[in-house]
Amino acid sequence: MSDTINKQVVLAARPHGAPKDTDFEVKEGPIGDPGDGEVLVRTIYFSLDPYMRGRMNDGPSYAAPVPIGGVMEAGSVGEVVASNADGYKVGDYVTGRGGWQQYAVMKAAEIRKVDPGLAPISTSLGVLGMPGHTAYSGLLTIGDPKPGETVVVSAASGAVGGIVGQIAKIKGARAVGVAGVQEKCDYVTGELGFDACVTHHSDTLAADLKAACPKGIDVYFENVGGKVFEAVLQNVNPFCRIPVCGAISMYNATSLPDGPNKLPMLTGLSIGMRLRMQGFIVTDYQDQFDDFQRDVSGWICDGSLKYKEDIVEGIENSVGAFQGLLEGKNFGKLVMHVGDDNSK
Amino acid sequence: MSDTINKQVVLAARPHGAPKDTDFEVKEGPIGDPGDGEVLVRTIYFSLDPYMRGRMNDGPSYAAPVPIGGVMEAGSVGEVVASNADGYKVGDYVTGRGGWQQYAVMKAAEIRKVDPGLAPISTSLGVLGMPGHTAYSGLLTIGDPKPGETVVVSAASGAVGGIVGQIAKIKGARAVGVAGVQEKCDYVTGELGFDACVTHHSDTLAADLKAACPKGIDVYFENVGGKVFEAVLQNVNPFCRIPVCGAISMYNATSLPDGPNKLPMLTGLSIGMRLRMQGFIVTDYQDQFDDFQRDVSGWICDGSLKYKEDIVEGIENSVGAFQGLLEGKNFGKLVMHVGDDNSK
Repeated sequence: MSDTINKQVVLAARPHGAPKDTDFEVKEGPIGDPGDGEVLVRTIYFSLDPYMRGRMNDGPSYAAPVPIGGVMEAGSVGEVVASNADGYKVGDYVTGRGGWQQYAVMKAAEIRKVDPGLAPISTSLGVLGMPGHTAYSGLLTIGDPKPGETVVVSAASGAVGGIVGQIAKIKGARAVGVAGVQEKCDYVTGELGFDACVTHHSDTLAADLKAACPKGIDVYFENVGGKVFEAVLQNVNPFCRIPVCGAISMYNATSLPDGPNKLPMLTGLSIGMRLRMQGFIVTDYQDQFDDFQRDVSGWICDGSLKYKEDIVEGIENSVGAFQGLLEGKNFGKLVMHVGDDNSK
Repeated sequence: MSDTINKQVVLAARPHGAPKDTDFEVKEGPIGDPGDGEVLVRTIYFSLDPYMRGRMNDGPSYAAPVPIGGVMEAGSVGEVVASNADGYKVGDYVTGRGGWQQYAVMKAAEIRKVDPGLAPISTSLGVLGMPGHTAYSGLLTIGDPKPGETVVVSAASGAVGGIVGQIAKIKGARAVGVAGVQEKCDYVTGELGFDACVTHHSDTLAADLKAACPKGIDVYFENVGGKVFEAVLQNVNPFCRIPVCGAISMYNATSLPDGPNKLPMLTGLSIGMRLRMQGFIVTDYQDQFDDFQRDVSGWICDGSLKYKEDIVEGIENSVGAFQGLLEGKNFGKLVMHVGDDNSK
């Protein structure tokens, strides 16, 4: 191991609204020593995901915030460069929560091995990792699409959305995406095989959705919140299921949008339409991880499921990449490439 | 049968906001003749329920509106005075959807017999009828309270809410009510055995709920919508279940309340708290009707479930009684008494 420093991105201040450059600091820290039962991992890729915006806020949440001065959290994949843990040796590829940094000491109990012979190791952060698992468990457990039903998913070209629509198709449903721009819509229908896709910047979103879903919406996989959700609600069928995975349109909001207050509208609609709206976090479905890996690997192998990565080079560029993610500027699963990948 | 006229309440105009006297007309109609497979029933009691406000509106709903000039719909119980249907004879007590009128011709397939020896026949419109079934199936199927959990129910002294809280107690949960006035709260805790009850007119409703639910809220049975729902959301536990049964606070609304728009707040909270919010209509659970009748009858017999009726005399008073219902002026299950009850 020739490196002696560990570049890290730490949280310098809690963002108010959209994260600014000055809310972060790229600094050089030491490379840690693995204690008993730990390994030192050289990060090759780390993941950037919308949920990280929540970790930058103080206050109650399902997960503790990143402390000021702390390394930003992230899933990562890399190479073991020192091991004090049974079952792990130098040269193993592992994935865990290494954060936005070049080296991380991790507990053996909190990592798992990645086989570079099965798929590029970066997929352990995307289609074969947390985002894929999120799509798989949220759609199949809560959404439960039936053949012939219509599934709508927002952020349809994103790391989760693209997989949701493809699994819906595999299960015999009609898949309709909502994405930010026409280029993404073209990808979703052309490459991923969705039946239709509409852009959420349209002034006629509810009508566009109606046209794209002539038999109404049976499942809405919610990633964005806000106006897209309201437009979907105008087109739901009775007994529609709504797995609530994210609300990216609101993550930078500093206050609720101006009224009228549409919460009572949802209550009323819920009764008449017997809507089922259910929030979830992927870690609730840890017991489905093996099923997810087996099914999605199989679908990738037989060509029925595709994925796209948006790989950004260099840890110095991670803040800008994350800012762009919240604005929908990425195209495919956003992954930072911060160390040599010798696994290929 | 000595009567020759049939007093009826018909819908004269579609209410805008709160129903006015002039939106209805009490008129005298003919007494119908039962055709093949039909019976003529002399109404003894009919039910007034909040859902009827929705039937007065035109526009899309899970049920067709009452036409202008049509008899208002209602569940009713009465005595067969003429029968052209196998299995029904003069003198039988039956319940069905007779409407706001003194006589109704009903299809045998759409009624069922009521045994006056088991309970007062008016209970077939309340604790042993639609409201009881609504409470039973919504709470147990969607809410699924576990021993030691906390169940909150709004409109807690009402036909549905009072039963919800008592079944929660029977299942080993803590029952907390929300009601309009202190007198109703005292009844809910003193007579029905709820652990606590708060009034929704309080300026400190969210804090009052927090005090009444020191371990947070695991199930919220939603009857009223609006501010009560928002106060509940400030006190939910992870994995809280929210059966959505009604939204009585909104039934007379002519527009959504002023902002901010709190719909995105719910989306965000749903994820972190893994909320499950599910609307339902009692007819979705027809297959549970026998279980409901068996269980609730048993609980009434062994003294673990109590009920209260608010019986108003005379069909001429039904409009005023219904107006009061939407304002929370009734106290217990509201039932109109419109014909002699010889069953006692």
